[in-house]
This record gives sequence, structure tokens and C-alpha cells, in this order.
Amino acid sequence: MTAVGVDVGGTKCLAVALGPDGEVVYEARVPTPASGAHRDLVEAVAGLVEGVGGGGHGPVESVGIGVPGLVDRGGVLRSAPHLDGVADLDLGAELGPRIGVAVTVDNDANCAAWAEFRKGAGAKVDDMVLVTLGTGVGGGIVSDGVLVRGGQGFAGEVGHMAVVADGPPCPCGRRGCWELYASGSALGRLGAEAAHASRGRAILEAAGGDPNRVRGEHVSDAATAGDAEALAVVAEFAGWVALGVANLGRLLDPSMVVIGGGLVDAADIFMEPIRRALEPLTLLEDGRGPLRVEPAALGERAGAIGAAMLGAVPEADRAR
Amino acid sequence: MTAVGVDVGGTKCLAVALGPDGEVVYEARVPTPASGAHRDLVEAVAGLVEGVGGGGHGPVESVGIGVPGLVDRGGVLRSAPHLDGVADLDLGAELGPRIGVAVTVDNDANCAAWAEFRKGAGAKVDDMVLVTLGTGVGGGIVSDGVLVRGGQGFAGEVGHMAVVADGPPCPCGRRGCWELYASGSALGRLGAEAAHASRGRAILEAAGGDPNRVRGEHVSDAATAGDAEALAVVAEFAGWVALGVANLGRLLDPSMVVIGGGLVDAADIFMEPIRRALEPLTLLEDGRGPLRVEPAALGERAGAIGAAMLGAVPEADRAR
Repeated sequence: MTAVGVDVGGTKCLAVALGPDGEVVYEARVPTPASGAHRDLVEAVAGLVEGVGGGGHGPVESVGIGVPGLVDRGGVLRSAPHLDGVADLDLGAELGPRIGVAVTVDNDANCAAWAEFRKGAGAKVDDMVLVTLGTGVGGGIVSDGVLVRGGQGFAGEVGHMAVVADGPPCPCGRRGCWELYASGSALGRLGAEAAHASRGRAILEAAGGDPNRVRGEHVSDAATAGDAEALAVVAEFAGWVALGVANLGRLLDPSMVVIGGGLVDAADIFMEPIRRALEPLTLLEDGRGPLRVEPAALGERAGAIGAAMLGAVPEADRAR
Repeated sequence: MTAVGVDVGGTKCLAVALGPDGEVVYEARVPTPASGAHRDLVEAVAGLVEGVGGGGHGPVESVGIGVPGLVDRGGVLRSAPHLDGVADLDLGAELGPRIGVAVTVDNDANCAAWAEFRKGAGAKVDDMVLVTLGTGVGGGIVSDGVLVRGGQGFAGEVGHMAVVADGPPCPCGRRGCWELYASGSALGRLGAEAAHASRGRAILEAAGGDPNRVRGEHVSDAATAGDAEALAVVAEFAGWVALGVANLGRLLDPSMVVIGGGLVDAADIFMEPIRRALEPLTLLEDGRGPLRVEPAALGERAGAIGAAMLGAVPEADRAR
């Protein structure tokens, strides 16, 4: 009765096996093959699944896979900006016969949203949006207990909503996308700007003294240490996060927005500034209360756990 | 077997009765009481419903009402910016006993979206967003055949997604909301700017020579007559519409975005500029085709028709 989930990331593939009560009973990871060859990726994932059986947690009854890109409603990975060379890959068709189990493939943020919704921060609400703040900004939408998929399966790309009409170009082809302002990369850029302008001394120090090497974690490290300049950068960044979160609130009226992704490792320093910035954007004339925002609860395993859960239950039976 | 729907607008209330095949068999309208007294509004709607029976189309089996404001999941109209003095109104509880039939109340754009989805422009897709361009910008979202309601019932406020981070204040309390750029009022503002800058002579003429009196319809009238300056204003406006439509495409991946509201009366001059502006925003690197955009098919009766349909079918049975 083991359900296996694999989260294929840009640098590593993480597998989990869930026991009968949905608890993680096994975990393993391998580097994501850099070749971009479909065959290598299939082998890597197959090896992870076989490892579960070899690890004494078999037989494997179902496999779900989360992948970083646009997955159509037939489970085909159409494009994957962070997996060089991978496109139009039907992992289910390639992998299923190889491992003898039906395979479900979904977008990684959808998988993570489903896990947070069923077992994580959103377990007590019916309407939730997960926003993942990492290298980019991703998302997954749960409406009335059901994942919102869209006509092609591509719903939830919250990072590519434009929030600055004439903003700089985004690699996606649009301009002023939220991802350009609210991702970990954007935090690094704000930190670098502060360092260049001599209002980020601790940030600069964390980056080894070179303003061009400032990354998001240098800002969060300095802010965690209590540096006022770094905290000011965090507050600026939080304003951008809140702007998009408020948009999601108006569009989807979720009972909770869950913030996941790499930045959640430093949730302590980000959540309160995000909430503060959100308050004037959501405490509006109509008298609604502030939109509830919580950090993700399942950490970096959310995607693999959600993939395992989605793989174990047919879509039609999935609503809570 | 008559299902009655009433669309309560800022200036008029429109009622329709649907026959057994869903066709409109009766239609009536009265001015919306200007008093803002709940009692007067209840009387006006009750009179419309009674008129259906009196008109020989009774007995009335169900009543649905669409109202312009935030309706919670219990059917209570929490706030209504275009109905002065109306707030926290439970029309169903006040009206039901009066007319002897259970009453369903929903947001007017949700009602119109449901009508367009079931019987109008979106009848052949499962994932659709209706955007209404009028005095403001409203919307309704259908995902996999189900209306997206949100935790409180307030989903679909597409007009209050911010698209200009530091834009001017919106009456809603936020800044840079899409409504400020893509509503009929915004079209009028763009037209007035053109008139002031001497690049809107036909627009100015349509407004009687006073640039401060330019409204959206003066722009569409001049554009419909083929005036090049007015068409340039329409193109600028269409760019703003397309910006938000592209955001909805990324967030929700609808198979179709339906454009409704007052502007659709001049669909001929707006749809092609919107499609042209949308193309570079949606023909992106991942190779997806352009987002499909169509004008609403049911005209000003969409809200009343959808209200009647929602009132006739319990929510749980509503998915197609």
C-alpha cells in the first residue's frame, strides 16, 4: 500500500514513500541529470522508485511525479524552463511500463499546494492559494477543495501576473511580472541595490564584500541577525509580495494564502512584514478583515508528498 | 415551472422568466429605488416577481437574484458600492416569505458568468472567465464547470487586481487597480486626455465640444464612425484590457475569456484591438497559442438569465 511521490527539481529529485496513514516512511534524493536527455531523467526517477521497494517499503502501489513546468491535462510536461532540453515529455508513458505501476504527473507547485491543503498549513480551509517564493514565483490554487487546473492544465502561474504595467521584460516574454519583484532572486537584487547605495553594509559583508555577489540569502541572513538595513530591504520586498498576494485575494478570495518555497526557511523574518504590508491592501472600504497568510508547513518535501497523494487517488475522487 | 431571475443594477432592476427549455418568456424592468432603504429594494424586486405571475407565466417555482456587490456564501449582500445605503442585506430572508418561494442571491457578475457559460459565448468550454467592462470592471470565474466562489463568496473581483504598482488610488482602497485602466470610465478618461491634447477632434465633437464632458461612449461612437484618432484611443485602451486578460490567462488558464458589460455593445471596434494587444502577451516562449477572447453573447440580460438559472438548481447539482 505504498504511495510514492517524486519531486523533480532543477538540481535534485526528491522521492518520498507514504505509509498507510500518509506519513513519510522513506525518503531519498538524487541529482537531476544535467544532460536534458529524457532517457536520463526517466532512469533517475525509475531508480528512485525502485529504491523504495529495495528499501523494504514495497510493493509500490502508485507513483505521482511533480515536475517544474507546464503539465497539460494529459500529464505531458510541455515545457520546463529549469530543465534544459526537456520538452513534451510524457513521463507517465515512459516510466509506467518500466516500473509496472500507473504514473500520475502534475506541476510541482500544484503538488505542493495539494499537500499543504490536505496535510499542511491549509488543512482547515477549503479555499487556499499556495505561493512559492524561490528562484521564481510559483503557485497552486485550491477552490472549494479542488485543484484549479485550467483548460490546458496550466493554471496557477501566479508569478507571471503583471503588476508593473511597463516593467522590465521577464524571461517569460511579458513585462513587469510579479516574479521579477517577489522571488528570491528579486530579494537578492533589492539587496544588491542597497549594497551599491551604501545602505546594506551587513548584507555586503555577508556576500563577501562584493555587491555584485549579493543574493537573497545574504539579505535574509543579515536580517535574521537583526541588521536594520537588511530589515528595511526585507520590508521593501514584503511590500512586493503583499501586492501580489492582495491581487490573489481579490481574484480568488482564498481563506488562506500559504507562502512556501526557499524563503520559508526564514519565515520568521518574512511573515510579519508581509502581513503588515498586506493590511492596508486588504482592510478595505467594504470592511473585510485582513487576508490570512501563513508559512507552508511541509518544507521542501511538500511537492513530493503532494505528488504521492495525487498519484494515489484518481482525480475524480480527490475533493475533500 | 417558471424560473425567475432578477438583476439588480445601480439604476434599474431587470427581471426575466425562463420557460421549460431555458428560453426567456417574459421580461420586465423597474428603476432601482434611489432611497437606499432595504424595504424599498425588497418591494421593487417582489413587484417584479409578482409581475411574472400576473403576466400569465406563473406559477413561479424559483427566484434567483443578482446584486452588484459582495455576496457572502450565505447569500447576504455585504456591501454594494453602487447601491447607496445598502449593506448587510439578506434579500432571500426578506423576500422569500413575501413571495412564498425560496430565493437565491448571488453576485451579478457571477450570475452573468454562469449564463454565458451555460448558454452564451462559453457554452462549449469548461474553463471560462467573464470580464465585464462597464462603469467598473467585474468578473466571474468558472473552473472545470464550477463557479469559483472563494472562502467568503467574494471571488471574481478581477477589476481590483493591481496592475500598476504605484498607480493612483482606487475607491476600493488599493492603488493601480485594473478597473482604473480598463473600465468604460477609463476609456472616457483616455478620450478626454486625447481631446485635451488635440488628438481627439471627433471625440470632442461627439462630446459637444467640451473636453471635460468626454465619456467612453463618445470614444466608441467616434471610433465606430472610423475616426483615426478615436481608433488610436481604442487601441491604447485595448492594451490595458489585454494586460489584465493576460494576467487572468496566466493565473487561471481559461479556455476562453468572455468580454461583457456595456462596452460589448460596440464589440466590433473593441474585440480586434484587444486580440491584437493580447497576442504578444500570450504567445510566449513556451509555445502556447493565443488566449481566446470572445464577446459576451447574452447582452444586458445575462445577469438576470444567470440568476434565474442559479436559482433553479441547487448549488451541489450545478456543475455541467
